[in-house]
Amino acid sequence: MTKYLDEIREKVKEYLPPKVRVKSIEFEGPQLVIYVENPQELAEVDIVKKLAKDLRKRIIIRADPKSLKPPEKARQIIMQIVPEDARISNIFFDEENGEVIIEAEKPGVVIGKQGSTFREIMRAVGWSPRVVRTPPIKSKIIDNIRNYLLSVREERSEILKRIGERIHRTSLIDEKWVRVTFLGGSREVGRSCYLLQTPESRILIDCGVNVSNLSSTPYLYVPEVQPLDALDAVVITHAHLDHCGLVPLLYKFGYRGPIYLTPPTRDLMVLLQLDFLEVAGREGTNPPYSSNLIREALKHTITLDYGVVTDISPDVRLTFYNAGHILGSAIAHFHIGEGHYNIAFTGDFKFEKTRLFDRAATNFPRLEALVMEATYGGPNDFQPSRKEAEERLIEVINRTLDRGGKVLIPTFAVGRSQEVMIVLEEAMREKRLRETYVYLDGMIYEATAIHTAYPEYLNAQLRDLIFYHGINPFISENFVRVDSSSKREEVISDPSPSIIIATSGMLNGGPVMEYFRHLAEDERNTIVFVGYQAEGTLGRKIQKGWKEVPFPVDGRREVVEVKMEVETVDGFSGHSDRKQLMNYIRYLNSKPEKVATVHGDESKCIDLASSIYKTYRIETRAPMNLETIRFV
Amino acid sequence: MTKYLDEIREKVKEYLPPKVRVKSIEFEGPQLVIYVENPQELAEVDIVKKLAKDLRKRIIIRADPKSLKPPEKARQIIMQIVPEDARISNIFFDEENGEVIIEAEKPGVVIGKQGSTFREIMRAVGWSPRVVRTPPIKSKIIDNIRNYLLSVREERSEILKRIGERIHRTSLIDEKWVRVTFLGGSREVGRSCYLLQTPESRILIDCGVNVSNLSSTPYLYVPEVQPLDALDAVVITHAHLDHCGLVPLLYKFGYRGPIYLTPPTRDLMVLLQLDFLEVAGREGTNPPYSSNLIREALKHTITLDYGVVTDISPDVRLTFYNAGHILGSAIAHFHIGEGHYNIAFTGDFKFEKTRLFDRAATNFPRLEALVMEATYGGPNDFQPSRKEAEERLIEVINRTLDRGGKVLIPTFAVGRSQEVMIVLEEAMREKRLRETYVYLDGMIYEATAIHTAYPEYLNAQLRDLIFYHGINPFISENFVRVDSSSKREEVISDPSPSIIIATSGMLNGGPVMEYFRHLAEDERNTIVFVGYQAEGTLGRKIQKGWKEVPFPVDGRREVVEVKMEVETVDGFSGHSDRKQLMNYIRYLNSKPEKVATVHGDESKCIDLASSIYKTYRIETRAPMNLETIRFV
Repeated sequence: MTKYLDEIREKVKEYLPPKVRVKSIEFEGPQLVIYVENPQELAEVDIVKKLAKDLRKRIIIRADPKSLKPPEKARQIIMQIVPEDARISNIFFDEENGEVIIEAEKPGVVIGKQGSTFREIMRAVGWSPRVVRTPPIKSKIIDNIRNYLLSVREERSEILKRIGERIHRTSLIDEKWVRVTFLGGSREVGRSCYLLQTPESRILIDCGVNVSNLSSTPYLYVPEVQPLDALDAVVITHAHLDHCGLVPLLYKFGYRGPIYLTPPTRDLMVLLQLDFLEVAGREGTNPPYSSNLIREALKHTITLDYGVVTDISPDVRLTFYNAGHILGSAIAHFHIGEGHYNIAFTGDFKFEKTRLFDRAATNFPRLEALVMEATYGGPNDFQPSRKEAEERLIEVINRTLDRGGKVLIPTFAVGRSQEVMIVLEEAMREKRLRETYVYLDGMIYEATAIHTAYPEYLNAQLRDLIFYHGINPFISENFVRVDSSSKREEVISDPSPSIIIATSGMLNGGPVMEYFRHLAEDERNTIVFVGYQAEGTLGRKIQKGWKEVPFPVDGRREVVEVKMEVETVDGFSGHSDRKQLMNYIRYLNSKPEKVATVHGDESKCIDLASSIYKTYRIETRAPMNLETIRFV
Repeated sequence: MTKYLDEIREKVKEYLPPKVRVKSIEFEGPQLVIYVENPQELAEVDIVKKLAKDLRKRIIIRADPKSLKPPEKARQIIMQIVPEDARISNIFFDEENGEVIIEAEKPGVVIGKQGSTFREIMRAVGWSPRVVRTPPIKSKIIDNIRNYLLSVREERSEILKRIGERIHRTSLIDEKWVRVTFLGGSREVGRSCYLLQTPESRILIDCGVNVSNLSSTPYLYVPEVQPLDALDAVVITHAHLDHCGLVPLLYKFGYRGPIYLTPPTRDLMVLLQLDFLEVAGREGTNPPYSSNLIREALKHTITLDYGVVTDISPDVRLTFYNAGHILGSAIAHFHIGEGHYNIAFTGDFKFEKTRLFDRAATNFPRLEALVMEATYGGPNDFQPSRKEAEERLIEVINRTLDRGGKVLIPTFAVGRSQEVMIVLEEAMREKRLRETYVYLDGMIYEATAIHTAYPEYLNAQLRDLIFYHGINPFISENFVRVDSSSKREEVISDPSPSIIIATSGMLNGGPVMEYFRHLAEDERNTIVFVGYQAEGTLGRKIQKGWKEVPFPVDGRREVVEVKMEVETVDGFSGHSDRKQLMNYIRYLNSKPEKVATVHGDESKCIDLASSIYKTYRIETRAPMNLETIRFV
């Protein structure tokens, strides 16, 4: 470690101009932090980029703390420098990165002509400015997360140093192999959890709840994962609870290491985990962890944007790629050893452009193995086109509204909700759909706010619509937030037709339960499923056409008669359908030698594996939970 | 545990006649030991059998130590009681089992008419007599093992108690699953090692050396096996070093638990491990452990005869079945949970009657899964019949002797050596083979002695030949032991023709090396391979027809020219050939649902797996090392 740092010091000397005064060099998490007395001299970012490339490290240049103006003072200076018409809405300081983040309605004005104002700020306050557009909806959760991380910054700095030292430890093992143990989410949907292992490293990918049985967790007690504090890293592909819902539990069981995820995944994850606890509390079930463990986990998060290559252990580099499934969803690509092997985990992915996102990435520098989802991997799992799906949804809604009924759309808070919102907003704007209130219950409003905070994670068309055409579909006046049970009762008892989008998406808890219970017995109403219903969930039962369903009320079980219309509109899914799954392999520009299928019912995982083998002659497997596959 | 013992106490009371005075009840290893003041009253073994069956426990009735005559006194009494013409050769005391073992040339005389003498002994000395026939060849190793175990009997008693408590611990886990991690010997021959896991138990099956690269061990460092002292048991299928050579290493790395094996496997294992160290020492290589670890392992052995059902953990019962491969070789059958699942590991097995053994057992009460060897699993791996093989061997030898040459037969000390000895002895007796000296070098002589000590492990014909026809082929006068390097030099320099059987079987060390080096350059001589030559061994190179082979001499490498005749006589193998492997599945009276093939070159494991699937529609796998298969 010390010797390694010495080598790095030499390199740094070689690259940086002599006038730059380096005070110290440290590892902080996966990053190399260079403390510089006069960072202004490094305004030419190219030098740092070249150094980073040569060292194959992420590099942060941080001003020597002495040369930084104190935050309050810096804030005043910035407000003086930046013209008022930039309309700055928020300024906050990211000490980890030595950055001051300036939120403004007109970011261009903060930057100034050819960056003149930007440079002036930097010279005056020491901090590097990062300028972002003020989100149109304020996210309470993002504010809370920022404030929390700021409040624990000293502890977090210690944590990052410890992680940095661990990542750059000396490797002693000569052997080379790569294997994956499947700990959950194999031949099933729910509790996704995979363990990537090399002789040197152990990396956990996802750690989700079982959507159809909240009391069953991934197989975290098997020896491969023990002791948890020996794991090198936890990597989260996206924020849905079946992929990240049990991450806080890892800290209960002794894990103390980092969680790698994209910035939107971090925020959505915290949102959904808090909601998970709240729903559990409301329903009187015993949640597997408490909110202080959510904070503990948050303290250990390290965010990575798409395309950023990062060392996460002595022999593993992680890069996230767009998965097209929900905001921030990522395909996690692992580069193992120096060119030894490359394996990617798709997580949930959509290989089709949607209203929100570009289709999943296919362009990897190298890829020997792929672990891919198979939710719609069955031979007949073809979805209609998005256009057809949208038309059908509008038709079903119009029909229901016309007969004076209410439309209930159960969705995950994140993903389908926003997709449906955009469709409804456009259809109302274009008068294809009768104008009516669209009630958003559960975490949907807050989730939408997070979407507006990360425009760079949306696709180009949507960004254009928002920023260049001034149309932000998320803030249409027809959308009404439901944030109290009195408001909910009001919506339910209001006799006029309306649309209700509510969580959870599979009717295994959440406000949708209350709506369903009251709307089910009126045949004018319609429930529309736009997302996957896992085996064992109430949603699946209703979808299958059960006329009476068991229903939990205050700890007892009632029977609810289902007289409302039950519709399933396929085609909105954030998952690839069979054709997209098969095409994904075809379009990969680096063909894998081995593919494992997971995250699907048993028959779908097996069928998809077999079809990929037959079509592409790629070795495939549909592993079971608790199995280990060796890849090389 | 205490509660469990209380339940057992009740049962014992219920079964035993009131006059039997029970002093205490204890677990000792897998056995339940009932200390009784007056064990004579239990001469009716049926009661104990019934109790054992009801409790599903192995039961030992041991006399309260106070009621046992001290060994020296007991020995005198026995000598007085037993008529002299029984010709007692040895009396020794097995305190663990409360037994006195009486070795006699005429066991019938010790037992007496309808057991009268037997009962008299019991009454007089307190110890239960066990009467065995005096082996015709004295085995030094068996004596040493007995003496060693006697010398550590107090420590061993503590060990067994600890093991007993562990086996009968309370089980807390509700889940049910069975999986196997392949740690060595998969898609390769050598370093066999498998880990059977349930939620409750971890059991290591075999732990062998890599025959072609002594420095590589099974993957014992992976987390599934760690920490080693958390393993419940080690089970050894047979004594060849590729199955048990690294067992002592487990104690170096922290294992403290039991080793289950058959009695002959125990003795042969110690013999071969000691030889392994000696050969390593002679060749100046660094052995992976020292002889005190062999003793440490021995201290933890628990022997089981074929067919004895034994608890080895809270949810696993082990039963050994004849594997027909070498003396004491076993198929290890595991009964998991109460009827939950049954899985057997064949180890190396021969599904054909040989000169020494019956063919491998096929009769299991239940069997859902089988892990089987595939040494000769390739599509063309058919061996000639035993008769053809024997004729061809004799023909090759006669031809060589006729031209004044010497015949060198490299073999494992155990198995092929004795098989070949029997063939040669019979052929000489029947004048089909010219009478000549057959030199036995390496551990062959001692291994043969162990065979004669366990006649019940030989097949019926051979036992008959020895005991009823008075012909013990092992003690023919033509067999000459070579036990010193001067004797070896003498054999080599003697110009007259002869036959030399020497270890090791694949020319990766041992006395055969010296013979080969000196005999290779004379074209009158012949080397005959009668056993499998693993890839990478010198034996394989010679077999392939290399005319010059690299040869280790005193740490350097010389080149030896191979001018001698090189012959391979197939058909003596202790392994099943392709046809026997396929037939084995057909003859199993309980058809497995899943079969995994191991212990064979990659292509053979894969081909056998695929053929079994095609022929029997049984799900098959040819796992790789480091993989884990879940069976249920």
